[in-house]
Amino acid sequence: MEDREKLVHPGERVDDLQRNGYGIIQDPDRFCFGMDAVLLSGFARIRPGDRVLDMGTGTGIILILLEAKTEASHITGLELLEESADMARRSVEYNGLSDRIDIVTGDMCHASELLGRGCFEAVTSNPPYMIEGHGLKNDTDPMVVARHEVAMTLEDLVRETAAVLVTGGRCFFVHRPFRLAEIFVSMREHGIEPKRMQLVYPFVDKEPNMVLIEGVRGGRPRLTVEKPLIIYKEQGVYTDEIYDIYGY
Amino acid sequence: MEDREKLVHPGERVDDLQRNGYGIIQDPDRFCFGMDAVLLSGFARIRPGDRVLDMGTGTGIILILLEAKTEASHITGLELLEESADMARRSVEYNGLSDRIDIVTGDMCHASELLGRGCFEAVTSNPPYMIEGHGLKNDTDPMVVARHEVAMTLEDLVRETAAVLVTGGRCFFVHRPFRLAEIFVSMREHGIEPKRMQLVYPFVDKEPNMVLIEGVRGGRPRLTVEKPLIIYKEQGVYTDEIYDIYGY
Repeated sequence: MEDREKLVHPGERVDDLQRNGYGIIQDPDRFCFGMDAVLLSGFARIRPGDRVLDMGTGTGIILILLEAKTEASHITGLELLEESADMARRSVEYNGLSDRIDIVTGDMCHASELLGRGCFEAVTSNPPYMIEGHGLKNDTDPMVVARHEVAMTLEDLVRETAAVLVTGGRCFFVHRPFRLAEIFVSMREHGIEPKRMQLVYPFVDKEPNMVLIEGVRGGRPRLTVEKPLIIYKEQGVYTDEIYDIYGY
Repeated sequence: MEDREKLVHPGERVDDLQRNGYGIIQDPDRFCFGMDAVLLSGFARIRPGDRVLDMGTGTGIILILLEAKTEASHITGLELLEESADMARRSVEYNGLSDRIDIVTGDMCHASELLGRGCFEAVTSNPPYMIEGHGLKNDTDPMVVARHEVAMTLEDLVRETAAVLVTGGRCFFVHRPFRLAEIFVSMREHGIEPKRMQLVYPFVDKEPNMVLIEGVRGGRPRLTVEKPLIIYKEQGVYTDEIYDIYGY
């Protein structure tokens, strides 16, 4: 146990994931995972034996949660920034998961070249939400890369997801509701049918701030919209459903 | 007042719309309007002076509610079945609205030929929800025509909506959530951008059974998803929001 502490660099901390005793290495000055990633890991229906790819994995939060929650045979994380990929690798090692998870440093715009076509039964992604166009050019700042489409676009994500999935393979995305129409149109264009969706509302009387989407490569048209996922019962008090997803 | 009762044929009844003293003539053996039409009339943002077209107006419920709730300059209803169009015309007369509402008997698949291109600032529709394909061929039974796409498809509706709208004109549809992806894809294909959407959940912990959608012809991409519209507070008790929409 003392050995693994050496994996944590100065300025970094280890956050307890409340699953299997797993922790994740984070640097509060860089980018820490949000509820988005946790909700996506709860929404994703990974089947036993699935080979899973997480596109733009950052510090690897989704990989580690999926390892804890599913019976995937292998989980791969693809991350553009070497600094983030390195943190993700150290978190994987910290939890003793190096045999089931690997991290590839690379650009998701070329995922199918890097990893092969039709090699995954499932793809997950918590991509940047904001459309580039506010003059942001810093595509090496992890905070910017995680939030803004400076290094990739929604279309890149969907195209490469379709390319790496087997026919019948599933993808699971979390995104902002204001881009829902674009997401559905892009999925359709690339042969991924939107099959399931859930809107996440912070309060029962507020606009949703996240949407969870499942698509099936080559699926038939018919969307299931799930019951609303509401985060807070009242100010500062999570609903039972959120506690369930977090595993408390 | 006695005169207008002659407009009501044997077997028909007049339902009170709780708005301006208006009533609507319905035949319980044919097709009676549902909550869908009422919610759509609450969701539609008709501007003062708008020329409005209701596609597939049936017995005219949306026309009469919009007349009561908005300052539209003129409202047109297009209905395929002469029997339904006749009931709608009698309801319009019953309420003394013949100068502001007219009913055209005709096929919405040819709306732009019948009524002209770019002639409306707003279009509403509560179309049939179910995809044809279960062998239903009776396209003169009002119940079948109202519920199944035997006489038109979603694509027909969206194409003709785009054709009759002015640039910047708005359309308002109510539909089933399971067709949401198709609706968005079709709107985009025909140059109507989905701009606003609200899911209608029967209860806070149930899947939604309706979706309300606003599109703008030639609009820029950005969708606003509204707070959930929940119908029942508890079994048999409407939420305050539903009472508001119904106008009690």
